[in-house]
Amino acid sequence: MAESWQQRAEAKHNAILAAIPEQWRITNPPIEEQVDVTGSYVHQYLSEREIEITETTANEIVKMTTTGKWKAEEVTRAFCHRAALAHQLLSCLLEVFFDAAVADAKFQDEYFAEHKKPLGPLHGLPISLKDQFHVKDVETTMGYVGWIGTFEGKSGTGKEKVFESEMVRELRNLGAVLYCKTAVPHTLMTGETNNHITGYTLNPKNRRLTAGGSSGGEGALIGLKGSPVGFGTDIGGSIRIPAAFNGLYGIRPSVGRLPYEGMANSMDGQNSILSVVGPLATSVASLRLVIKALLSQQPWLYDPLVHEIPWRTSQEDEISGLISKGGRLCFGVLGSDGQVNPLPPVRRAVDEVVQALEAQGHEVIPWDPPPHKTLLDESVKALAYDGGVDVRAALGLSGEPPVEQVAFYANLDKEFTASEIAATNVKIRQLKKEYMDYWNNTAKVSKTGRPVDAVIMPLAPFPAARPGRYGYYGYSTVVNVLDYTSVVLPVTNVNRKIDDADEGYSPLNEVDKGVFESYDPEIFEGAHVSVQLVGRRLQEEKLLAIAEYVGGLIGK
Amino acid sequence: MAESWQQRAEAKHNAILAAIPEQWRITNPPIEEQVDVTGSYVHQYLSEREIEITETTANEIVKMTTTGKWKAEEVTRAFCHRAALAHQLLSCLLEVFFDAAVADAKFQDEYFAEHKKPLGPLHGLPISLKDQFHVKDVETTMGYVGWIGTFEGKSGTGKEKVFESEMVRELRNLGAVLYCKTAVPHTLMTGETNNHITGYTLNPKNRRLTAGGSSGGEGALIGLKGSPVGFGTDIGGSIRIPAAFNGLYGIRPSVGRLPYEGMANSMDGQNSILSVVGPLATSVASLRLVIKALLSQQPWLYDPLVHEIPWRTSQEDEISGLISKGGRLCFGVLGSDGQVNPLPPVRRAVDEVVQALEAQGHEVIPWDPPPHKTLLDESVKALAYDGGVDVRAALGLSGEPPVEQVAFYANLDKEFTASEIAATNVKIRQLKKEYMDYWNNTAKVSKTGRPVDAVIMPLAPFPAARPGRYGYYGYSTVVNVLDYTSVVLPVTNVNRKIDDADEGYSPLNEVDKGVFESYDPEIFEGAHVSVQLVGRRLQEEKLLAIAEYVGGLIGK
Repeated sequence: MAESWQQRAEAKHNAILAAIPEQWRITNPPIEEQVDVTGSYVHQYLSEREIEITETTANEIVKMTTTGKWKAEEVTRAFCHRAALAHQLLSCLLEVFFDAAVADAKFQDEYFAEHKKPLGPLHGLPISLKDQFHVKDVETTMGYVGWIGTFEGKSGTGKEKVFESEMVRELRNLGAVLYCKTAVPHTLMTGETNNHITGYTLNPKNRRLTAGGSSGGEGALIGLKGSPVGFGTDIGGSIRIPAAFNGLYGIRPSVGRLPYEGMANSMDGQNSILSVVGPLATSVASLRLVIKALLSQQPWLYDPLVHEIPWRTSQEDEISGLISKGGRLCFGVLGSDGQVNPLPPVRRAVDEVVQALEAQGHEVIPWDPPPHKTLLDESVKALAYDGGVDVRAALGLSGEPPVEQVAFYANLDKEFTASEIAATNVKIRQLKKEYMDYWNNTAKVSKTGRPVDAVIMPLAPFPAARPGRYGYYGYSTVVNVLDYTSVVLPVTNVNRKIDDADEGYSPLNEVDKGVFESYDPEIFEGAHVSVQLVGRRLQEEKLLAIAEYVGGLIGK
Repeated sequence: MAESWQQRAEAKHNAILAAIPEQWRITNPPIEEQVDVTGSYVHQYLSEREIEITETTANEIVKMTTTGKWKAEEVTRAFCHRAALAHQLLSCLLEVFFDAAVADAKFQDEYFAEHKKPLGPLHGLPISLKDQFHVKDVETTMGYVGWIGTFEGKSGTGKEKVFESEMVRELRNLGAVLYCKTAVPHTLMTGETNNHITGYTLNPKNRRLTAGGSSGGEGALIGLKGSPVGFGTDIGGSIRIPAAFNGLYGIRPSVGRLPYEGMANSMDGQNSILSVVGPLATSVASLRLVIKALLSQQPWLYDPLVHEIPWRTSQEDEISGLISKGGRLCFGVLGSDGQVNPLPPVRRAVDEVVQALEAQGHEVIPWDPPPHKTLLDESVKALAYDGGVDVRAALGLSGEPPVEQVAFYANLDKEFTASEIAATNVKIRQLKKEYMDYWNNTAKVSKTGRPVDAVIMPLAPFPAARPGRYGYYGYSTVVNVLDYTSVVLPVTNVNRKIDDADEGYSPLNEVDKGVFESYDPEIFEGAHVSVQLVGRRLQEEKLLAIAEYVGGLIGK
């Protein structure tokens, strides 16, 4: 008798656990017994040396590994151990290949010993990858039971466990050590991470809450410092949501900056709003490190959608030069998009950033752009073009039902026509142009005489979502529709003593009501609170420079 | 009684002629009486000074106008006169606004007199525009009778005769003088220029042949030197075809290099293969001049689809540096795409370029890429997505039938679904990747150790098409599917004494047969013969540098 999808999911679930060495196995306490598993809780299972290594940022790690001060093997083993703990506490991994990683690390150590130089700028740096990257010797399931044992749902392609995504090739060239792939919600179309293989991925800082999604496995893993830097993808917030919910820095680059070539995806070929790939990490310097390294590989020669734009130090220098000479930056601030108001801790985070900047003499002006709702209406269309055909086909391979968070996409029933798609494309272009003109026109009101340098806005209306209650994507998705650069900036943590729920709040609409009602300071206590810094299209260097500066001001 | 479409077309036709000053009116001789109207034929109507001015390339003109040596007004009047002659002989203009141009030129002369400096790098340079650009005070019909008196077919938009396309704004900033808009085939979807307003646009060098399309008015006008440089658009060859058929240089830049914002278009919102805008001119230096000038306007701040890639002098310097040090370039050569063989004069042009390069010690290797047919199959789909909805709507406004050249698009009847479009997008991306890999791999066989620098290939199988016989677009369209940079290089002219028809040729297929049978050395005598130099995506500076060098070698 053929296995049921439940049996296949369970077998894969168990295989992931089985890949964790016996000596690293721990007991997972009930959530309410141990809400926060970061810091001292996870430290109990680690040696001093492992803690030292895993609590070093990626940019600092490579200073040690590329100079031979730290061995790649030791670094790799430390992160493998901490990742194993993270998975057992949070359900964040879909593929575990520690043995291959240790073998790669040993090879690197030998290379360094022989040549007295590193393999590349990422020599000995463990990097985690969302389970859309193809890596040899392991599967890519993207959380679909029906993809187990296949290449993107297809059998006999010759690519199974052999083919590698372009970025994987580049990361290996650069000396990175790959050791695990992280959990996603099947379909990728939600801000929570849930699938029938790993189950629900928890937030390490507050396990009552989601780790975010769709790069939620990355968020949880890096949030617990089981990885120094990892790559996710973002079509409506999927890099930035897990970054924000886990107190991390994360960047959504514009389309065509980093290579997506050869990665698995949902609704591939929907070309109105493209998913992008980008890193999450505990420091801006770590994000810069990996982006700069990847661009040194000239990805435009290997991915037809990448533009030939090398790393532009001049963009960074402009910002740092300005600041070091006492010059002023000008920021826009969007407190609310008028659709769903942010909850009290998010409001506080926005205010804290504004105050920190104003205290340094920078200018912050209200951001009152063309209505975000109009932009979001188009994004809803773009993501529903295929009427659920792709998602149902993937789920149908095993017969598994959609998890509740993505039922919307599985239940769509009408495909858009070519004319409807063309009309959406035209509308999106027009709205981009209007937004661009608004941005340009801020030069007329700013004291700098320049258009605003970046916009401070919430990334989500909540610090994180409670399971099953991620009800509004407007703040993150507007960036995808505009194809802007956005960097998530961790700001603070929920403090039940000051982040009271709003008394007598009268909701704007049903969605706003749902978000309002999901807030409970007791439940959210301690959760990370972040904002995003939004820049224009293809302004990655500039936005990273600004995020690093602002992060420094607020002590992050 | 409402006017018929014929009456409306005729009224517009007459209004264009009426805009030509009385003293510039001439009699148009029958085609067979005067096949070639270039050179001495057109000179009879021009003064020595007018000939001097209009036979100066754009890059040389601005040396005079930006230094005050030549007055903008005199230059403008000379080109207006020659453009008026061109239109009467070739039917190449859809909008004539000489008075506005002279007024602008006078203003520029006053500006120069007062400030002792030019308005910008294009000060006093007349530039012609394909009738997709919106220019204040005149219409944009794109050859559709139903668009007369409207804004893109719509009334009461408030944009009629007021709105200007983004590139028009930039050209004015730069000091260009706009004076006419040029004929297109309605729908833009053919390599011949024909519509019910202007009628059929003739080739000035050989009026038995087409001037090309869809930027055919540009080709004819610049071919007769009624404009020093003009802008067309290209989705399947529409810049390069008129450039090639008129002995001009023309560049198809990659998508996102130059601003298309605010231009009229066909099937707008079809996002799989995008139309691009680019210049045609009598010298490479003229193309460089206008592109470099436009990029100095930072179009990426005003057009959401333009990438922030400033003019890269380093790309040019690499080529010129290499050549000046006696270094070698490596070219691929594609004699035939295996679908339709080029006619004898085109074969000869390819051979002459190869020989000229080899004589200088450059390397030319066979180009044997993944089959072009597979790429072209996808382009056929992309251009048929909407099942003719857009084209029928535009024709339906007036009730005019399609001209025979575009009947295919008007007669499509099935819209693609979202899933079918997505599958096409995925396939195109995969084919781009395969082609890219092929290109990269030429580094393994070239003597330079680098991938080939450019590929020499036909732009069309014929030197020009005979009316109604443009049967094959594969050579030009493959570049659009790949989004590559391509520069048309004029090489030679048909010589009936050496370009015999192939005796006993056995055609590859029906299309090949049609092309073969359309050739008659007597009819084609004197026609321009060109090739294209194809480079990778976004390599405009490099390809212009190469085209200038190769053009120099063959004496063009």
